[in-house]
Amino acid sequence: METAAFYHRPESEYCYIYAPGHVHVRLRTKKGDVAKVGFIKGDPFILHLNKWYEEELQMEKIASTDLHDYWMIDTDEYVKRMAYAFHIYGEDGSDVIYNDRGVYPYIKESLENSGLYFRLPYFHESDRFKAPEWVKETVWYQIFPERFSNGDKKNDPENVLEWDSRDVLTRTDFYGGDIQGIMDKLDYLQDLGINGLYLTPIFRAPSNHKYDTTDYYEVDPDFGDKALFRSFVEEAHKRGMRVMLDAVFNHIGAESTQWRDVAEYQEESRYKDWFFIKEHPVPSAEEIRNRPPETIEHVENLPYETYAYVPMMPKINTHNPEVQEYLLNIATYWIKEFDIDGWRLDVANEVDHAFWRKFNEACLAVKPDLYILGEIWTSSRSWLDGEQFHGVMNYSLVGNIIDYFVEKQIPTRKMANVLNEQLMQYRKQTQETMFNMLDSHDVPRILTMANGDIDLVKATLTFMFMMHGTPCIYYGTEVGMMGGADPQNRRCMVWEEERQDRAMYEFTKELIAFRKEFQPLLSYGFLKWDIVLDEEKVVGVKRHIGDEALIAYFNQGEEDFTIEKDPNAKVVFGRRNTETETGSVLEPNGFSIHLVRQ
Amino acid sequence: METAAFYHRPESEYCYIYAPGHVHVRLRTKKGDVAKVGFIKGDPFILHLNKWYEEELQMEKIASTDLHDYWMIDTDEYVKRMAYAFHIYGEDGSDVIYNDRGVYPYIKESLENSGLYFRLPYFHESDRFKAPEWVKETVWYQIFPERFSNGDKKNDPENVLEWDSRDVLTRTDFYGGDIQGIMDKLDYLQDLGINGLYLTPIFRAPSNHKYDTTDYYEVDPDFGDKALFRSFVEEAHKRGMRVMLDAVFNHIGAESTQWRDVAEYQEESRYKDWFFIKEHPVPSAEEIRNRPPETIEHVENLPYETYAYVPMMPKINTHNPEVQEYLLNIATYWIKEFDIDGWRLDVANEVDHAFWRKFNEACLAVKPDLYILGEIWTSSRSWLDGEQFHGVMNYSLVGNIIDYFVEKQIPTRKMANVLNEQLMQYRKQTQETMFNMLDSHDVPRILTMANGDIDLVKATLTFMFMMHGTPCIYYGTEVGMMGGADPQNRRCMVWEEERQDRAMYEFTKELIAFRKEFQPLLSYGFLKWDIVLDEEKVVGVKRHIGDEALIAYFNQGEEDFTIEKDPNAKVVFGRRNTETETGSVLEPNGFSIHLVRQ
Repeated sequence: METAAFYHRPESEYCYIYAPGHVHVRLRTKKGDVAKVGFIKGDPFILHLNKWYEEELQMEKIASTDLHDYWMIDTDEYVKRMAYAFHIYGEDGSDVIYNDRGVYPYIKESLENSGLYFRLPYFHESDRFKAPEWVKETVWYQIFPERFSNGDKKNDPENVLEWDSRDVLTRTDFYGGDIQGIMDKLDYLQDLGINGLYLTPIFRAPSNHKYDTTDYYEVDPDFGDKALFRSFVEEAHKRGMRVMLDAVFNHIGAESTQWRDVAEYQEESRYKDWFFIKEHPVPSAEEIRNRPPETIEHVENLPYETYAYVPMMPKINTHNPEVQEYLLNIATYWIKEFDIDGWRLDVANEVDHAFWRKFNEACLAVKPDLYILGEIWTSSRSWLDGEQFHGVMNYSLVGNIIDYFVEKQIPTRKMANVLNEQLMQYRKQTQETMFNMLDSHDVPRILTMANGDIDLVKATLTFMFMMHGTPCIYYGTEVGMMGGADPQNRRCMVWEEERQDRAMYEFTKELIAFRKEFQPLLSYGFLKWDIVLDEEKVVGVKRHIGDEALIAYFNQGEEDFTIEKDPNAKVVFGRRNTETETGSVLEPNGFSIHLVRQ
Repeated sequence: METAAFYHRPESEYCYIYAPGHVHVRLRTKKGDVAKVGFIKGDPFILHLNKWYEEELQMEKIASTDLHDYWMIDTDEYVKRMAYAFHIYGEDGSDVIYNDRGVYPYIKESLENSGLYFRLPYFHESDRFKAPEWVKETVWYQIFPERFSNGDKKNDPENVLEWDSRDVLTRTDFYGGDIQGIMDKLDYLQDLGINGLYLTPIFRAPSNHKYDTTDYYEVDPDFGDKALFRSFVEEAHKRGMRVMLDAVFNHIGAESTQWRDVAEYQEESRYKDWFFIKEHPVPSAEEIRNRPPETIEHVENLPYETYAYVPMMPKINTHNPEVQEYLLNIATYWIKEFDIDGWRLDVANEVDHAFWRKFNEACLAVKPDLYILGEIWTSSRSWLDGEQFHGVMNYSLVGNIIDYFVEKQIPTRKMANVLNEQLMQYRKQTQETMFNMLDSHDVPRILTMANGDIDLVKATLTFMFMMHGTPCIYYGTEVGMMGGADPQNRRCMVWEEERQDRAMYEFTKELIAFRKEFQPLLSYGFLKWDIVLDEEKVVGVKRHIGDEALIAYFNQGEEDFTIEKDPNAKVVFGRRNTETETGSVLEPNGFSIHLVRQ
């Protein structure tokens, strides 16, 4: 048995309290190497009084990746403390104990010494990762306000272009989208079934994307004003929709009061410690704009730290207590005054953890069920410890889905393995509040990635809706909008029904209704793979709670594929599927979802 | 190559900032399986501008355990962000890339996609684990105040016994030790070389050990008063000695105001939420004392939570904000008013992390270089993330040293392997501030464990002084005191010189002087094994910085053993060693320490 491949870590995603009465314990072993795992547990203070190690519970193999098998047990404790160890039985017939000190032979000496066990020293509700429950039951819609709907011509920017008048966008186009526009479309969004709105930044900023904030306390005048935003949130709430805003706290715009002051007064500026300035003088926004164009978007060796070497985006010094207070006041201001429901945090990984812990504490003190979402593109365990974020923009997970469905780069088995790998990085409650989106303002639109194949987009989107995590639709996906990399992915929303893909709209609406109908299973169910057929390019994924399950089959091959009839199953959703006496016949890009009660 | 055994985790003990300009990155591989590891790193924002992945640095194999090899690199970054991956070359000739998404072939595709790399997204000083530097240079002395020295007969308890008058102690003996007694002996401790004093609890409590606090704001009257304690700290500080107190925040004594109120008023008590009460009525201290003796020390199914089922020690509800405020005020009061330098936290693992984070923040705000030490007996990564403790009572590490030297239970190789395993669990700065002690008030005295073999104790203590971590001597060890499990390990300090082992005293003094003389090497040097000879039961351990090293050889065999002469080495400390032309001849239990400059 390959004992060197074992991995377990107390008080991490390998051992955590999922919910009161549910302790989840996981173990990693080498793939195909271990036959079964016994879980030994008890109260460390009564080890010698009753030999609890003589009893062992069975762990379940819940996931496999390219290299590993993962085992899990969901155990309820009658006491408040748990000492535990694993009794691991190899496929080769050997067996060992794996405990806090390492790997030992299964003998009395390694069982009777309570100091050798892994520990969950005491179960504290305050240490449990708690995410807002409503997030798990939300279907999001991401809006890029400048491009969604122009509801008020009076606040249009000076250089406004006619709505959707250009086929190829530039980075500096303005079309006049605003908050009144979003408000006007709330009925539309409600009809679609959306119950969460994520708006990219709305605070005052010169660009069309507003990621270069100049004033965090003002709604950009091109978008409206605070009174309007307040009504907007109220209207959304009336419809049962939550509202999440985008906070850019990693950097600020060079046109902000603070940077202008620094550029003017340099060492004498009261804001000089609000930034990471290496040497003076630093340039003003005007000086930056007047430089040769090739030095506007990427300049290394700047005399100050920035976001991604962009001179117009000086990095904010979140170590400075004055800055912390400033940013935390902003964060709580929009919650207290406007009752927003979530903060999406831009470039969250480049801001210090210490600041995010303070942010979490300050925001949740005001609104305990606020959703905190970080923009992080890589594995994110360090931010998902329960003290910082509830989820991240799940590019890692979704990227893998796209690699399989859209890019056709990887075989079915690899997708399942990588998805398992992603899932095993997080506690179950974290999986449930990850933010899943096929596309966004930062990547090409999914229909463009799929070369216009709308059936493929439907399959891919449905697959994503089968996953753990809170799904999000990028504005326009529901009417078949296309667009490549930024800025082409930020085209004006198409509102003329004759230019919309109405079938896609109806499909999206049904998909959302399906997700809501099977809320407990899709929000909370465990995920298992039902079939993973490499050659036929068919995949079946199951979500289950107790003896109820939803199983979704996707045919990504070139030929029809038949899913055999299961007398206990009922098809509840599908596309390009024909239900016959023998089973579900799936055309290429077809899928069917089966409800199974046993 | 056994790729399933690879392990790395960003922002953990596997990747952290040790000091400004020093990023430590570690990797785990299967033992003996990997020939070399190339470290690939660069700035994720300029990956495509220059192909930094074409260059690779060499990682060093720094430690081996029973199952694994650990590799490390200490790298300095010219930029603030680091993307990195490992190029791992197997002993079998194969090579792979190990990155944030898993194991890949070494091909362009896995190198040019910046999204696949592990990340240290941005180096923030605020996220670096910082431990007080002075701790690394401290030699501690643990005092059990009731048994150290009786300096003031006037404050003796009523039932005081004559000093050291019983051969077999009971749990309820009182001998009259007090703070005046400790103060009187400061010159003694200074002569010995001690520069840190750890006092077990001094707050008002009925027992002799004072772990059943009744008033955290008062010095126990048997020990003195606050004015005396203030002078004591001042006197200690004058001598360059730090003072650490013991905080029992997991539970409180049943005779405390709070529990008395609860026992009297039950559901009506204003303190009822200060505890974890399952049902009323709960018993008063008197009721507990009047029960049959067998139900005083261990009762399961109590109607309230306690420490280890001890009815007299009700567990404190640290989730209650009122309780938090109460305890944090106590913690900061003793720092602010008396200038103490450290808090040792009793049963620290059973209190919630959320509370300890608040504790850390509150205490360090008052005294930024305060030492926070947790009592935790198992692996302690969850508390040593930089936001809670600086170190733990290192029973895990020291237990292994005792298993080898004293219990003779494990071969030399096993001890080295387990020590490496322990070291690899923590960041280097954590290793440096772990609290190492061969014994304490909770375990039998080392000389008793060693069956009175003082030479063996000298070797074991010296070995511990060679380790990372801040060493502590339990009072009396320096004069050869013995004593078995609690309460025999808490005998009165022997002050008559004729009853003291003066040679042991001189030895301890020299050992402390040696540790101080080689401060940088012993506090900060990397640890490597020089020789590990199973058959001969000889071990050599090295601490090195640059080309300077200390190597200590210990002969735990039955025969003399000769360490061959190294012309670059000079013997700087030893016992039972004879220096000859050919080398150091070590008798059984002998050791010699060699300073090597190359």
